[in-house]
Amino acid sequence: MTGLSISERAEALATVPDWRLVDDRDAIERRFTFNDFDDAFAFMSSIAALAKEQDHHPEWFNCYNRVHIVLSTHDAGGLSTRDICLARSIDAIGQ
Amino acid sequence: MTGLSISERAEALATVPDWRLVDDRDAIERRFTFNDFDDAFAFMSSIAALAKEQDHHPEWFNCYNRVHIVLSTHDAGGLSTRDICLARSIDAIGQ
Repeated sequence: MTGLSISERAEALATVPDWRLVDDRDAIERRFTFNDFDDAFAFMSSIAALAKEQDHHPEWFNCYNRVHIVLSTHDAGGLSTRDICLARSIDAIGQ
Repeated sequence: MTGLSISERAEALATVPDWRLVDDRDAIERRFTFNDFDDAFAFMSSIAALAKEQDHHPEWFNCYNRVHIVLSTHDAGGLSTRDICLARSIDAIGQ
């Protein structure tokens, strides 16, 4: 597992425009807001299934109807294609 | 919904000895570590069901096999009996 080159990175990030780079580490993040806790946790359950499929896991925080997701790849020391893939899958169910 | 008096608070906190007071707010926290993400998320799913039953929700962070839970009651401006009840229920399934 290696990180992304500069050109791969720009190309990959362009495919997940709703995510932003985290300030103090090589990671991307996105915040979601739902109607209530049940909707937020249903979303998290769907992502947990994706994470299992992709063998790649989010770091995430939930408070009632809000879910904050951070993606980074420990083995790559930062962003990798696995993060971009998971972000795109999350976008597909979160929008 | 009101907070706990000093004596109620001491008595209540004594029933959840594995939780600690959060430094910078009126809340309690506990950290759990599991074998892997699947075990951690199964635990979170059980807590989500408890939260629904008790109509009281954790603030929580998960990274792979680690789950960090913070309990506080917004309506009470800090710790309430609802947090203690949820903490005890979480302890019952997390140990």
